[in-house]
Amino acid sequence: MRKVEVVPLRGIPEVSPGADLARLILDAIRREKLRLRSGDVIVIKQKAVSKAEGRLVALAKVRPGPKARRLAAAQGKDPRLVELILRESVRVVRAGHGVIITETRHGFVCANSGVDQSNVKSGYVALLPVDPDRSAARIREALRRATGKDPAVVISDTFGRPWRKGQTDVAIGSSGISPLSSYVGAKDRFGYELRVTEPALVDEVASAAELATGKLRGIPAVVIRGVEYRRSEGGVKTLVMEKSRDLFR
Amino acid sequence: MRKVEVVPLRGIPEVSPGADLARLILDAIRREKLRLRSGDVIVIKQKAVSKAEGRLVALAKVRPGPKARRLAAAQGKDPRLVELILRESVRVVRAGHGVIITETRHGFVCANSGVDQSNVKSGYVALLPVDPDRSAARIREALRRATGKDPAVVISDTFGRPWRKGQTDVAIGSSGISPLSSYVGAKDRFGYELRVTEPALVDEVASAAELATGKLRGIPAVVIRGVEYRRSEGGVKTLVMEKSRDLFR
Repeated sequence: MRKVEVVPLRGIPEVSPGADLARLILDAIRREKLRLRSGDVIVIKQKAVSKAEGRLVALAKVRPGPKARRLAAAQGKDPRLVELILRESVRVVRAGHGVIITETRHGFVCANSGVDQSNVKSGYVALLPVDPDRSAARIREALRRATGKDPAVVISDTFGRPWRKGQTDVAIGSSGISPLSSYVGAKDRFGYELRVTEPALVDEVASAAELATGKLRGIPAVVIRGVEYRRSEGGVKTLVMEKSRDLFR
Repeated sequence: MRKVEVVPLRGIPEVSPGADLARLILDAIRREKLRLRSGDVIVIKQKAVSKAEGRLVALAKVRPGPKARRLAAAQGKDPRLVELILRESVRVVRAGHGVIITETRHGFVCANSGVDQSNVKSGYVALLPVDPDRSAARIREALRRATGKDPAVVISDTFGRPWRKGQTDVAIGSSGISPLSSYVGAKDRFGYELRVTEPALVDEVASAAELATGKLRGIPAVVIRGVEYRRSEGGVKTLVMEKSRDLFR
């Protein structure tokens, strides 16, 4: 087993709508004196992808409806922000203590449908990409075309979780890496057969990336090298638990 | 920002009750041609710590009570295993589809109270350490005494989560590293003040470690180098959400 390295890609400029993220990433990799390799995992923060895809909304242009106004008043939030949170969601899972937890149209359960004001120009908010797996696939394809190498791409966002304080970075989109690394049916060295062990590799990759970027350094991407993974075209959408199996719906 | 490196510590023998984990880890670090540094984070898997602390139970010696027998029948599990799950828990959070989610005496919400048969000799199960923060502190103190360096120690376990398939490694004990890396009150480069951003650094560290160990290679520990963290004596118990703030109780 080799060591795993997480290399932050510094010096990437503020991402504008229409920006060529693959190009910005390859330039940054070159500045780090690295060359992209097949098997590398490129982790890109959601905010950079959302900006490149123009998923920014001016709050001043949002008209909150009655449901948004009620929920905003109850939770002490900007009604225009809450209107966007509701539009991006299929249901409100919980609301309380100034927090609104929703299920997004992608099936993710997170605070505020992922709508976020941090690291965005004043007066604007960023929405999640419409289809983060497709975003990852597009960036991967551009990296492949430019280099002839086949990396995996993971798009990460910062999610809270029940029962534990704080947040961890998780994957919201991926391409070229199997989201789960299944050990089901494998036997440990005592002959015991594993029945449920399926590490969510893409989420662990996203968390490892966060260790090297932090939140305020303007580092939107990292290269992770040395992770063993199976290639797969199935994206993060395959991680969403089926309703019928979900004990927490 | 430096790169982050995760170095798996190979060649550590099967851990027996009473084993000196600090010594086994230092020997393995030397075999990797490394030297322990202050600021390194040593991540150790729960199973190794539980074995060293003798937290192994022979299933044949467990007498299941009526509650355990009922729950075991409903979920298709071994009643002796369920008896241990109940003894290690303060409440059953959910049960269904053959899964029992409990809150442990530590306040962790996880499958089977962390009681686990994998990577344990046949007929036995491993329980979580009684006080994983203290376990981490003891190992850290032994590493300090032996080397004069001050690393952090994190004890990791594999937990599932609601709404998403698969599991990620999270921290169940820590010493010398602040579990949360708070940005509350900090401003981003657009002047926006962060209000809730608190990455759960110890959980991200645990996930990064898992990328380098996998589940079946018999690698119970890693060294992580290059993570920026605040020293802290507050362990993972400070991550447990207060009941009054928990939207998911």
